[in-house]
Parts: sequence; structure tokens; C-alpha cells
Amino acid sequence: MTLDVNALTFDVFGTVVDWRSGVIREGEKQFPDHDVDWGAFADDWRGAYRPAMDAVRAGDREWATIDALHRGALSELAADYDLDVAPAALDELNRAWHRLDPWPDAVPGLRRLGADYFRASLSNGNVRLLANMAKRAGLPWDAVLSAELSGHYKPDEPVYSTAADLLDEDPGDVLMVAAHEHDLDGAAAAGLQTAYVHRPDMWGPEESVERPDNDAYDLAVDDFEALASQLGA
Amino acid sequence: MTLDVNALTFDVFGTVVDWRSGVIREGEKQFPDHDVDWGAFADDWRGAYRPAMDAVRAGDREWATIDALHRGALSELAADYDLDVAPAALDELNRAWHRLDPWPDAVPGLRRLGADYFRASLSNGNVRLLANMAKRAGLPWDAVLSAELSGHYKPDEPVYSTAADLLDEDPGDVLMVAAHEHDLDGAAAAGLQTAYVHRPDMWGPEESVERPDNDAYDLAVDDFEALASQLGA
Repeated sequence: MTLDVNALTFDVFGTVVDWRSGVIREGEKQFPDHDVDWGAFADDWRGAYRPAMDAVRAGDREWATIDALHRGALSELAADYDLDVAPAALDELNRAWHRLDPWPDAVPGLRRLGADYFRASLSNGNVRLLANMAKRAGLPWDAVLSAELSGHYKPDEPVYSTAADLLDEDPGDVLMVAAHEHDLDGAAAAGLQTAYVHRPDMWGPEESVERPDNDAYDLAVDDFEALASQLGA
Repeated sequence: MTLDVNALTFDVFGTVVDWRSGVIREGEKQFPDHDVDWGAFADDWRGAYRPAMDAVRAGDREWATIDALHRGALSELAADYDLDVAPAALDELNRAWHRLDPWPDAVPGLRRLGADYFRASLSNGNVRLLANMAKRAGLPWDAVLSAELSGHYKPDEPVYSTAADLLDEDPGDVLMVAAHEHDLDGAAAAGLQTAYVHRPDMWGPEESVERPDNDAYDLAVDDFEALASQLGA
């Protein structure tokens, strides 16, 4: 069965790019003389920005971009890890999130999909972060869309409805592609169709990723090549 | 002298693409059996959406995209030109604005600029229109930015300041590139740097385009190849 959709929106961190390996690589490269467990550092960093993002979602904190939330979390984290370096060095480390590498199937799959579908990012990452990442990694987005354009964060409804508006599509003609169930659940609640992509390594070697029930989403695939095949592209 | 900027924002209609020839071509192609002066039609169409846009700018009319403003103008225009066709045919003609061809220097110039600068559209055209156009014409935008993202139209200040925010740049580190003086004047008022591109044919063979004073803008060039050279790209 092929879904009838016009546009695809993609979660990025974990779904398109391997954020964890990228952060580890950048940490090791930028601070070769510091004895830091970069795997643990990456996990703690990813964990630490969530409370700040939830405060924005709850209205307890003014809008701030993911770059700003990452940077705020990084200051505290650097202290925890005895990473005693200049603020400018932390600014540079913060840009690790702009330089993440795609999973090997991501670019080939996106290329195939481009012939038949409109492809947009739809990440909590801010526009400039996503665009810098795409430029470096060759992600062939037809448009860089972001939660930032709605002033809300996923999985809140305005992120998805704003994206559908900007795409000039009915929500039901848009397919949200993500490796995170809460993201797909939010998209479904906003009326989008949903495709789950299984990324077993997205949290690193220590943590497993459980597959959702077979019928939880409109599609479930193992990678972007399979997604392209399922969509007839 | 090379300007010190990080990001370039580009007006699109007239500056990057030849809207007039594109509309004429689409009209002739879609309605070969109708005796319409498509040059006059294109000029009237371009003229007719302005009052509607100005009504949005003045707050007298709710936000509407350029696609919607074009379509509204088209209904009246079709009647004026005795173009008695089905609404779906007019919908298709309205998408002529998604299928405009770039000036010959535009894509080569944008490619050169990409190595050193971040390149974004910044047009009154809506996101989907601009993205469809870029996909078809191979315009290598790093991000598709639009007046739509601010809920205002150029040359109003929020268009430019929203773009600088989304680019995470100070306005002074952004160069607005346009063939229209009112656009550059609006950008300058918002603190952006400005580059004028001379497009003598943008209003067709009957109307000339006067060059502004030499010192009116930070740069003045004849095409995008010259822009790339001036910017050291």
C-alpha cells in the first residue's frame, strides 16, 4: 500500500543524523587534551536541554532557540565535567550540533524521494542550525522548516499545523517521518500521516530502542531507502 | 572593497528570476487557442496584486499569501481579458509564478557565492512558491526565507528583522540583494547592508529601468557573477 501524500516532513536529530556520534567526534577533536567521557557528555547534554525546552513549552520561559538552550546547558555541563575552557571554545563546541553526519541511508533515500515528493525538515532545531547542517552534509531539503517558525516546540500542535500552512497542504497530505514516537503522536494529533523509522543506535550502544506496535503508525520502515521504496519513489 | 557580511538575502521576482517572460510563456503554453496579449496580461497581473498587498500591509486586510493574492487578482483579470476558462485552469495558471526561469547569471553566481556565504531567498512570495521554484530551477538556497515568516510584506521592517533573527545574524552582517530600490531602502532602514543588481529587462522591452545614484547602496552590480566577484567568492 502506498500512502497518498504530497509532502514529507522529517525529524532530524536521531532520524536523519546521528547526533550522538557527531557530538563525541567534535568533543574529541576540539579538546584532545581533556580527559572527558564524551559519550556520557553527549548523553548528559541531550538530556539537559529538555527541561529548558519543556519550560518554554509550558510558557514558564520565553522563546529561546535550541542553539541557545544547548549553550545554556553546556555551561553547566562543562563545569560538571571539569572542562575548564574559555566561553568562545564552548561556543564552538555548541556548533557541534550544526555539523552532525547523516545516517548512511539518509541522503540516498532523500534523493530518491525528491523526484516525487516535497521534502522538508521539521525539527526542534532552529532554522540556521538546520540549514548549516544541511549545507555541510548535503541534505537535499526542498525547504528548511523548523519548530522555530511556530514559536513552539514539538510535539505541540502549532509546530505541525504551521508546517502544513507553510507547505500550503492539508495536514492529511503531509507525512511526518521520525524515529521518535512522541513526535509521531504529536503529528498524528495534528492530522498528519506518520512514518516510523527505526534507528536502533540513536541513543548509543548501551540503550536499546524498542519498536512500536505494527499498526501504531501509517508506515514503519528500517531506513530511508525502505521509505522511498514504500512510497513508490 | 569587499563588504564584511556573513549571509546574503535575495529578492526573487525580477532579481533572480524573469517573472515577466515566465508568465508569458506559461500563458501561451496553457492557453494556445486564446487570443490574449500575454505581455500586457503579465504586466496587469503584476500590477493588480499590489493594491491587495498594500491592504495587507496597511492592516486593512488579513494576512494572505502571494499565491492567494495572485489568484484573487487573476479572477478579475481573466474576466477583463475574456479568458473564459474553468477555475481549475486559472489555478494552474496561477502556478506560473512557481515555474519562473532564472536570469542566466543567477544560478552560476549563486553557486560561486555558496562557498563563502550563506544564501537565503527573502521574497514576498510565500515559502511553498519559492521552494517549488527553487526545486524546478535549481536555485541553490541554503534556506528559503520569505516575508510570509514574519506575517508582513516588504519593504516593512519586520520582514528584514525576522530574517536576520532566523539567520542568527546581526542585521549589519546580512547583505540584501535586490533589483528594486524600495526593497533595498527597506533593508537599509532595518540595518542590513545593500547590493543593487541592475536588471534592465525586468519590466519588459517597453519600460526602462533607471540606475540609482552610485553611492545609494553599499554595492551596485550588473549581475550575480559580478556580485560574486565583488564579494571575493
